[in-house]
Amino acid sequence: MSRQLHFNLFLHDTGHHEASWRLPESDPHANLSLAAHQHLTRVAEDARFDSVFLADSPVLWSDPGRRPAGKLEPTLLLASLAATTTRIGLIATASTSYNEPFNLARRFASLDHLSGGRAGWNIVTTAGEAAARNFGLDEQPQHRTRYERADEFLEVSTKLWDSWADDAIVADKGAGVHAVKDRVRAIGHRGKFFQVEGPLNVPRPPQGHPLLVQAGSSENGREFAAKWAEAIFVAQPTLAESQAFYADLKRRAVAAGRNPDHVVVLPGIVPVIGDTPAQARELEAELERLIAPEFAVATLATVLGVDPARLKLDEPLPADLPTEDEIEGHKSRRTLIVDWGRRENLTVRQLIGKLGGGRGHRTFTGTPVQVADTIQHYFENGAADGFNIMPAVLPSGIEAFASRVVPILQERGLFRTEYTGTTLREHYGLPRPANSLELISR
Amino acid sequence: MSRQLHFNLFLHDTGHHEASWRLPESDPHANLSLAAHQHLTRVAEDARFDSVFLADSPVLWSDPGRRPAGKLEPTLLLASLAATTTRIGLIATASTSYNEPFNLARRFASLDHLSGGRAGWNIVTTAGEAAARNFGLDEQPQHRTRYERADEFLEVSTKLWDSWADDAIVADKGAGVHAVKDRVRAIGHRGKFFQVEGPLNVPRPPQGHPLLVQAGSSENGREFAAKWAEAIFVAQPTLAESQAFYADLKRRAVAAGRNPDHVVVLPGIVPVIGDTPAQARELEAELERLIAPEFAVATLATVLGVDPARLKLDEPLPADLPTEDEIEGHKSRRTLIVDWGRRENLTVRQLIGKLGGGRGHRTFTGTPVQVADTIQHYFENGAADGFNIMPAVLPSGIEAFASRVVPILQERGLFRTEYTGTTLREHYGLPRPANSLELISR
Ligand SMILES: Cc1cc2nc3c(=O)[nH]c(=O)nc-3n(C[C@H](O)[C@H](O)[C@H](O)COP(=O)(O)O)c2cc1C
Ligand SMILES: Cc1cc2nc3c(=O)[nH]c(=O)nc-3n(C[C@H](O)[C@H](O)[C@H](O)COP(=O)(O)O)c2cc1C
Repeated sequence: MSRQLHFNLFLHDTGHHEASWRLPESDPHANLSLAAHQHLTRVAEDARFDSVFLADSPVLWSDPGRRPAGKLEPTLLLASLAATTTRIGLIATASTSYNEPFNLARRFASLDHLSGGRAGWNIVTTAGEAAARNFGLDEQPQHRTRYERADEFLEVSTKLWDSWADDAIVADKGAGVHAVKDRVRAIGHRGKFFQVEGPLNVPRPPQGHPLLVQAGSSENGREFAAKWAEAIFVAQPTLAESQAFYADLKRRAVAAGRNPDHVVVLPGIVPVIGDTPAQARELEAELERLIAPEFAVATLATVLGVDPARLKLDEPLPADLPTEDEIEGHKSRRTLIVDWGRRENLTVRQLIGKLGGGRGHRTFTGTPVQVADTIQHYFENGAADGFNIMPAVLPSGIEAFASRVVPILQERGLFRTEYTGTTLREHYGLPRPANSLELISR
Repeated sequence: MSRQLHFNLFLHDTGHHEASWRLPESDPHANLSLAAHQHLTRVAEDARFDSVFLADSPVLWSDPGRRPAGKLEPTLLLASLAATTTRIGLIATASTSYNEPFNLARRFASLDHLSGGRAGWNIVTTAGEAAARNFGLDEQPQHRTRYERADEFLEVSTKLWDSWADDAIVADKGAGVHAVKDRVRAIGHRGKFFQVEGPLNVPRPPQGHPLLVQAGSSENGREFAAKWAEAIFVAQPTLAESQAFYADLKRRAVAAGRNPDHVVVLPGIVPVIGDTPAQARELEAELERLIAPEFAVATLATVLGVDPARLKLDEPLPADLPTEDEIEGHKSRRTLIVDWGRRENLTVRQLIGKLGGGRGHRTFTGTPVQVADTIQHYFENGAADGFNIMPAVLPSGIEAFASRVVPILQERGLFRTEYTGTTLREHYGLPRPANSLELISR
């Protein structure tokens, strides 16, 4: 079989467009509704998507006046979704800066058991002072320190998952022996950030380790991804930038001693689908009109590290913005936005319109065939191994993509028509990791 | 309607008897199986139980050689169970010593939203050095310090749940206003253990706060329970001790300025049901024979704080055991066991047999009518508001209780035949808490 596309659905209540909740079709309480998430996940599973994904941060992320801001904790929401799905992968975001490795490694091991090997972890270091202030800190740890901690966090987590051999449990009722003693053992980790004795109180997950996913694009983020990540979400607004990122990541993976095919690169795309190109563009324009500019300016100012008063709606970005080095938050997001505004010479209002849709991700606007063509073009030209699908409006956006774009790609032999594996790793064609503590036996 | 009994099913894979996994009927992998937990919960919901409950500790709790030791993280497992149930309450244990309040308050708020108001939190402070060593500590914090932290943890958690007014969300699509700004606000908590800015990133839970449950019986534990708990699990081996505990707790609740009816006391019982008294006793004896004594001695020695070599199987407990004051772990558990052994003058082997079944909880052995009679007697004589049902063997023990004991109590008008409410608080007859930040409006 030829190389196959991979699709992840980025779940986001009424859609990735920040004004999507205001459309007549939208349920403005979808963010707190299990039923709404079950529907989205069912549509994705029926279309044979590899996975669904939930973003997260341990802080009130957006202004609750502006859009639905409450977010259910992702590992719990995905555990609920595990009960009503059978094949699709379930990827939750969780922070290495504001969790303890024992607790988090255990939650992901539990999700993997509950779902029969369908858990994935989008590893983030969590930018922003506001999150830090929910955890006893006045300032966020430095960007470099956060990634150092993330690295040790992963070291501890993988050891904990490996603290039970795959064949530790023998369940010998006659002899009264449930697990073989020396196949479960302490990890005795003593490092710079963590001291964790172990073993984990959950046996090794069905996948060995949950799928490790990453989404940071700064220099530190890419190094971390090259070392640990098996799938990477990325925001790149042009084909050329996607190609450059793709090549860079695969190169770094090789340098880290890894097989580059075992790092799946998934750019985010916002498909806007119409029967005609004009109809698709009209939907896009309607959404832009619904954005409340004062809220959007405040968000943009935070990412850029400037006073909101300095951003004038009908003028371009100020010339003297803080550089990426001066920002301790979302470094790569800041640079992407600044470059985009300058390259296309956009006013603040225009920039907000573009970001409102894809927040820096590429919008693919057009008919189903046009969208399928663009996907194929990226896939066959070194820009993507698959895509992180971020519909502007949900559920209609994923229904349209599943019913109109997916069949075209299946017909072209680029996307599965049936699941061939049962685990998330199998969907993405990734190997099951060996036990790092060499707890293999018999 | 007369005062009604309450029932909680304490979920425990193949049963509370430590040798239950060795019976021919048992699935020795039930501890990791969502399907097994779904079945148990369905039986309890069909019998109109108030709730199911999962115990927990962030450490490998028992010897993995001896019995199924892996435990799925409770908030995730209950989130899964929320998807396949509609009425029954879902109570998860979580530690205040080894979590951050922002993260945990959020998980319980999420579970409450996901389940439509059915979440409960069994608040524990986690005894033992082994757990401490999974979180960077060489020793566990002192018993008193753990309860001090627990108290502040609850203060922060309730403020976080109250950081959104019940009517904060207006979802006005036309005006583009999702929540009213001043009905969501920071909590600015600065205390001895925690600094948490807030607000929470999940709106106020459907129940206001999840149901607060507690299970520690030491002096510190009872004071904490009297202040915070709305339901209390307790282990008392005799009627007289249950009555004394019941009276003590209600008195403390009144002293703390609370309505004693709003503190529901639930002793644990192990029902062992047979068609005849002799048949029930035979089942009990069979389970005792399956216990491997060397493992049981090791566990007992840990709780008592002595070298296992000092416990001789066919002799009584040593006279010079450490006192409750000298123990930083499960103080009340230690004292209960020592008193029991001395009162009945049991050998270590006999004590292990009794503990293997109920671990200090009362075993009700007999025919369905005898078990129902004992329950009624406790309920009507100031010993219990309901019971924490801990079958020695699962699922058969809960199937027997549901099909044979519950109908007798329903016929006597002591237990509901239909759910009358939809939330866990409604099942237990507990009020929905007012917003402590006075974020009530309009
Ligand atoms: C598709 C996608 C999803 C992301 N999801 C999250 C998220 O859920 N939580 C988060 O803190 N950051 C998320 N990020 C942002 C990065 O992880 C963020 O850049 C990181 O916090 C710091 O990264 P840096 O290495 O780019 O500075 C996401 C990025 C992308 C492209
Ligand atoms: C029915 C019941 C369930 C319990 N569940 C737990 C539990 O899940 N985790 C835990 O650490 N302790 C649990 N405990 C024990 C008490 O919470 C324990 O005594 C506490 O850690 C320290 O309490 P103390 O106040 O009695 O010293 C439980 C006790 C009872 C009676």
